Amino acid sequence: MNIFVDLALSPDALAALREGTTGCQLLFPQTPATSVLASPEADPRFKAADIAFGQPNPQAVAEAKCLKWIHVSSSGITRYDHPQFRALMAERQIVVSNSASVYSEACAVHALSFLVAQVRNLPSALQTRTANGTPVWNELRLASGTLRGETVLILGFGAIGTRLAQLLLPFGANVAAYRRQARGDEVVPVVTQPGLSDALAQAQHIVNVLPDSTQTRHFFDARRFAAIRPGAVFYNIGRGATVDQTALLAALLSQRLKAAWLDVTDPEPLPDDHPLRQAPNCFITPHVAGGHANETTSLVRHFLANLQRFIRQQPLVDRVM
Amino acid sequence: MNIFVDLALSPDALAALREGTTGCQLLFPQTPATSVLASPEADPRFKAADIAFGQPNPQAVAEAKCLKWIHVSSSGITRYDHPQFRALMAERQIVVSNSASVYSEACAVHALSFLVAQVRNLPSALQTRTANGTPVWNELRLASGTLRGETVLILGFGAIGTRLAQLLLPFGANVAAYRRQARGDEVVPVVTQPGLSDALAQAQHIVNVLPDSTQTRHFFDARRFAAIRPGAVFYNIGRGATVDQTALLAALLSQRLKAAWLDVTDPEPLPDDHPLRQAPNCFITPHVAGGHANETTSLVRHFLANLQRFIRQQPLVDRVM
Repeated sequence: MNIFVDLALSPDALAALREGTTGCQLLFPQTPATSVLASPEADPRFKAADIAFGQPNPQAVAEAKCLKWIHVSSSGITRYDHPQFRALMAERQIVVSNSASVYSEACAVHALSFLVAQVRNLPSALQTRTANGTPVWNELRLASGTLRGETVLILGFGAIGTRLAQLLLPFGANVAAYRRQARGDEVVPVVTQPGLSDALAQAQHIVNVLPDSTQTRHFFDARRFAAIRPGAVFYNIGRGATVDQTALLAALLSQRLKAAWLDVTDPEPLPDDHPLRQAPNCFITPHVAGGHANETTSLVRHFLANLQRFIRQQPLVDRVM
Repeated sequence: MNIFVDLALSPDALAALREGTTGCQLLFPQTPATSVLASPEADPRFKAADIAFGQPNPQAVAEAKCLKWIHVSSSGITRYDHPQFRALMAERQIVVSNSASVYSEACAVHALSFLVAQVRNLPSALQTRTANGTPVWNELRLASGTLRGETVLILGFGAIGTRLAQLLLPFGANVAAYRRQARGDEVVPVVTQPGLSDALAQAQHIVNVLPDSTQTRHFFDARRFAAIRPGAVFYNIGRGATVDQTALLAALLSQRLKAAWLDVTDPEPLPDDHPLRQAPNCFITPHVAGGHANETTSLVRHFLANLQRFIRQQPLVDRVM
């Protein structure tokens, strides 16, 4: 079997991949990928691939006649998640899986770090040099909280949202989830479309973990920001394109939103002169929520475990199509 | 009964105090206190007090012949915690309680905010503007973690330490506690003096919640910092005087410590030109860990609940002497 591999791997990760694919042929692109998220180019070697591991070019997929399985090296599958591509996969019986399990723990902890940094006012507390008892000090103390009794609404409730809910519940937070369809096995109450406006109006913390797709593009638009509880805090750990950033900026400037914490933006990185960079209480990390030590080795291990399942014709973990 | 009240209260808190002490006489100092932690002055009205609520002057306590109960408005009881004062309390049969329960939740969440901000590299991530795939970005992602499998040693295991352990366990961290004597009801394994060096050598995260007393003064000295695991992170949520700050600075400069997160220092605030302010990876908040909305109302409620117990001769909550 030919496995086309277009993601940047550490030497350890590459060694693990070679060891775990003995008997298979590894094909690498002519232009090496620079990250696990790098935008793919079409590559002539791809045509011979039985399996693709990385971020294969969607156009090239249509022309790869032997392809049976695509294992995407990210949680997000934006560049594949549209009806035409799904139809092609169904027609050609190509299975698609992603790497959600590899990133869910780090993403959930990153989201939690945003929430607790917000309730403890870390950005301003770390800048404040003041004596006990001063007005500034009293204000800072009284503006701090604990999440107890506060309502957190998580939009998108896959592996990341579920893990985040597990981490939040011990704080005594009231956690609810929004997803298109409740499955019945969620660890928190679920609202679907009809309950969304009420849920947005109640939550003090709104955590967006939505994937980017044609249905979620600008999901958070001016109308949705107008529906949120005044003084709520908005977090984005999903994808930047799910937010209308002009509407987000307006919500921050009008102080309808108390703060925004974004790990993802549109584009990435956000230009230095983008108005969100100067917006009050807007905190941005550069798409690092999923990051963790030995990340590409984790990616390779997850792929290799799925490869064994693929060979044995067992159901794949993190299958998305 | 006369209740001497020397702490700064919000109007709501003062109203709650008046309502809950009907039939008692409230005595206020001539110089109003500026915070719940303010250093007390002797006040002539104190002599008539049956009960003291706040931070009464230790000298004045000796001269207040009617005094039966002191309810301290903080978790820390440093200014009272020495053998002479304890002997006086025993001799005069004065009960001393503190406000640990009021602050434990906020302190534990503050400590947790430090730990997750550290493992997610928030201080540098919030400053980094870089594209996916650049060396800086890869480095930032790979330097991030999740606490899973990491060892956290909590020194001092009262209400704050216990609550912190409860919040940390769902992350998959290995949590251990150090205290003078194990009680057997701790939620995590406990080490005492003989096991301390080994525990310090193993922990990636060392969380100091020790109170300040003659036994804990400079508990973290050069010898203890030399015993820690290289690359560990040090957190202080207890009291500044438990740390030899010269030794802490040396441990940061030599990179034996990867970082330090301090909510307490000695003195407070730390002067602007103190070398710890410039030390690498030293993050300081100005003694706000216990802060939360309606803080003084919480303090009053806790006092009033104890007042009912005191009147009914029931055991007090948070009794310390």
